Amino acid sequence: MAHNQALHPRPLPRALLYTLGPTGAWFLARPLIEPVPALPALYAAVGFAIFAFLAALYLVPALGPTFIRANLKGRDLLKTYDTPIPESQGLVCASIYILLLILFIPYAFSESITNHHDTPKHAREGIVVNEFPHHQLAVYLSSLLSLLMATMLGFLDDVFDIRWRHKLPIPIIASIPLLIVYYSERGATDVVVPLPLRWLLGTLINLGPLYYVYMSLLSTFCTNSINILAGINGSEVSQAAVIALSIILNDLLFLPWAFGFRIPLPLHVTDGVRVGGVWSAGMAYGSKILVERHLFSLYFMLPLLGVCLGFMYHNWYPARAFPGDTLCYVTGMAFAVVGIQGHYSKTLLLFFLPQIFNFLLSCPQLFGLVPCPRHRVPRFDPETQLLYPSRAEFKEKRPSALASLALRVFSALRLVELTLDDRTGEIAQTTNLTILNVFLLRFGPMREDSLTRVLIATQVCGSLVAFFVRYGLAGLVYDGNRR
Amino acid sequence: MAHNQALHPRPLPRALLYTLGPTGAWFLARPLIEPVPALPALYAAVGFAIFAFLAALYLVPALGPTFIRANLKGRDLLKTYDTPIPESQGLVCASIYILLLILFIPYAFSESITNHHDTPKHAREGIVVNEFPHHQLAVYLSSLLSLLMATMLGFLDDVFDIRWRHKLPIPIIASIPLLIVYYSERGATDVVVPLPLRWLLGTLINLGPLYYVYMSLLSTFCTNSINILAGINGSEVSQAAVIALSIILNDLLFLPWAFGFRIPLPLHVTDGVRVGGVWSAGMAYGSKILVERHLFSLYFMLPLLGVCLGFMYHNWYPARAFPGDTLCYVTGMAFAVVGIQGHYSKTLLLFFLPQIFNFLLSCPQLFGLVPCPRHRVPRFDPETQLLYPSRAEFKEKRPSALASLALRVFSALRLVELTLDDRTGEIAQTTNLTILNVFLLRFGPMREDSLTRVLIATQVCGSLVAFFVRYGLAGLVYDGNRR
Repeated sequence: MAHNQALHPRPLPRALLYTLGPTGAWFLARPLIEPVPALPALYAAVGFAIFAFLAALYLVPALGPTFIRANLKGRDLLKTYDTPIPESQGLVCASIYILLLILFIPYAFSESITNHHDTPKHAREGIVVNEFPHHQLAVYLSSLLSLLMATMLGFLDDVFDIRWRHKLPIPIIASIPLLIVYYSERGATDVVVPLPLRWLLGTLINLGPLYYVYMSLLSTFCTNSINILAGINGSEVSQAAVIALSIILNDLLFLPWAFGFRIPLPLHVTDGVRVGGVWSAGMAYGSKILVERHLFSLYFMLPLLGVCLGFMYHNWYPARAFPGDTLCYVTGMAFAVVGIQGHYSKTLLLFFLPQIFNFLLSCPQLFGLVPCPRHRVPRFDPETQLLYPSRAEFKEKRPSALASLALRVFSALRLVELTLDDRTGEIAQTTNLTILNVFLLRFGPMREDSLTRVLIATQVCGSLVAFFVRYGLAGLVYDGNRR
Repeated sequence: MAHNQALHPRPLPRALLYTLGPTGAWFLARPLIEPVPALPALYAAVGFAIFAFLAALYLVPALGPTFIRANLKGRDLLKTYDTPIPESQGLVCASIYILLLILFIPYAFSESITNHHDTPKHAREGIVVNEFPHHQLAVYLSSLLSLLMATMLGFLDDVFDIRWRHKLPIPIIASIPLLIVYYSERGATDVVVPLPLRWLLGTLINLGPLYYVYMSLLSTFCTNSINILAGINGSEVSQAAVIALSIILNDLLFLPWAFGFRIPLPLHVTDGVRVGGVWSAGMAYGSKILVERHLFSLYFMLPLLGVCLGFMYHNWYPARAFPGDTLCYVTGMAFAVVGIQGHYSKTLLLFFLPQIFNFLLSCPQLFGLVPCPRHRVPRFDPETQLLYPSRAEFKEKRPSALASLALRVFSALRLVELTLDDRTGEIAQTTNLTILNVFLLRFGPMREDSLTRVLIATQVCGSLVAFFVRYGLAGLVYDGNRR
């Protein structure tokens, strides 16, 4: 049965096309109709998000055979069947995404010119900025260049199959356009100092060149941390979708909402949390720059969410399409872009809690302390149809003292399961150091789709914690002077 | 012997590296040293051109084995040996080219900021503009986006092997960023009307949306016209190199030369040609905009020439590396970019005379009037080691009246050689409709490298004619009001 499921592409619900098509078209047309809404480009971004979803939904299966013919295909390692599945289809998603972002340009930048001359500026505090700063076009374009380079490099990685410890620094190359334009535009390189350190460093500290190092490391982290939390159907794309959704919710907090000055925040955190800033008209009350930054972020995140959801439909268990590295590269770079250009990289990193945990856990294998097999995905047992933790074995080389220490600490924390040598008492085997194996250890063997659901739930919980830390606890270390 | 030649990569002259490396470094450093030269960014562009040459020279052979491993390889159809040759290595050239153009950004745009505030504007007519307009950064970035998209699409074409009649419109997609930003920046859409038509249309005519159609057709033409004049070692890259060189020479005419006000034009046309504009300080005398446009063009063309020359060393007969469609896409798009952004598309097309001839000649095969085999390259005879014209055969379908007419006209012009059916007297075979076959018909069978030399000589002659038409004859149809 599973065999047949994988052979046939998932049915595409026609009703969705007929409902969402006109809805998306309406969102694209609305900014052009008088009276022009408060944030016209945001309407367009929603429209493009809908079309991104539809395009991914329809193009991914349509191009599958072409990918298989070009030898971009793989066998699903955690299945009983051998049907070739098209690989690297993140390329389709990335192409849709970038093309839509390009088509979006006139909405955000051309409109601004017209409005600029026609209407007087709204000086009203905290209310609508219905123009997008024209000089931001260069920043927008440099972001697109970085995204396109990430796509290109991701696809080259898929084609040339670069070894994975070699490819860790690749995203730095893709971030060059971003950094160069940031430099040419004389972007701010200072950061707000946390309250407890202000007596030493002052309120603002200029990191100078270090800021560029920080930015390129951020793109490397965003890209690779998703790439190493992979291997089961739907894992990469669902992480990207949850992170994109979290960023969108966070951005919405900073918009100048039109309906009155008192709005309930669309935020599902336990009540009693002290949300910083001015409550009435979003978190950006009065700051035009903050509104612009979060609009910029929304323009990138809305279509990304659309494309991820569309792809997830085909990547869900049992997967009809694989993302390849391309998807991780382009989504990771998109997150880095909005974090850098929107100046909220610390908040961004809070949405990566599961990835940070997985990265720290993986370090002993990434840096060669513990043997690292080519695939660290959980082991599939065809008998039970369940996934079990996979293992890495110490063969020729015995574990070093540092490796033993790390593994024993992890074992005490119940993050790994060790197998000891009967004679020497040394560590002979360990479960692979990934969050997926931790789930299987903690919750027991489970089906592949259940494991993906656990991952998604973890990611959602991580985002809830992030919102709590950002708006509940940040008041302890930062005052209202947010950047 | 030929076999051994192809097996071993061409030797890389060390002396070149040790001479050109420091020279390039000096050109990159010069703009940073006081006193700053007149056109600092132009120094940097020359430096980047030198490094582009060196990078292509060294990286193309270094990455050859990687390409072969990734199955990006091909057999040389016009040789006796079967050695696999790395294919699509235009990707290496394109990557070097685009990366250098990105690294160039601070020279052209950041410098401008500093100079802008420090020095008073030089109002002296026709002399140095040592600042680059800052708003041009968006235009520059959109050009880079188009180049990167062309590279991406060219590589996808190589990987997915898109059928060649289907891929004709692909460059239109790559030109979208260019057009969108041109639109958002409210670029001029009017053209100067030739003198004989002014009574009807006025001096300037606004083409409006048609101008965008024209621009996208221009990129399609530049890309595909090089792509269909291909198939022998060195053909694509030598065309690109000669066209780039011609554009560079044309750009140099418009620079405000520093040495005095009377300069001999670096132009090798027969004397007595009436060169338009003011002779003394370049063709742009007094017009800052013209200088800026041609500087912009030089920034793109100098590194392109470097990368082409470096690649040509390995692509020359017998070829150690093939360009793939990627090279044609990126070079064609680069020409379209400078033609559009520099507003000299008519002059640009004059440099494409051999390509225009080849395109017109190819039309009956492109549009299906005459059968079109998969490869139209000349036929190689292993006995004589010479190339002969290749033929297309009318098999099932007899030639239509239109096809017969076209072929008989071409035959009368001695552009094709027809074979008639003995019984019916109808056309049974024709030589393929390419300029390469025309050369072989006119000059007789020749070695592959001789044919490439004939092609290069034709391209050079075409450029000489172009300069004569542009500066000698254009006065008849245009006045000094050039755009």
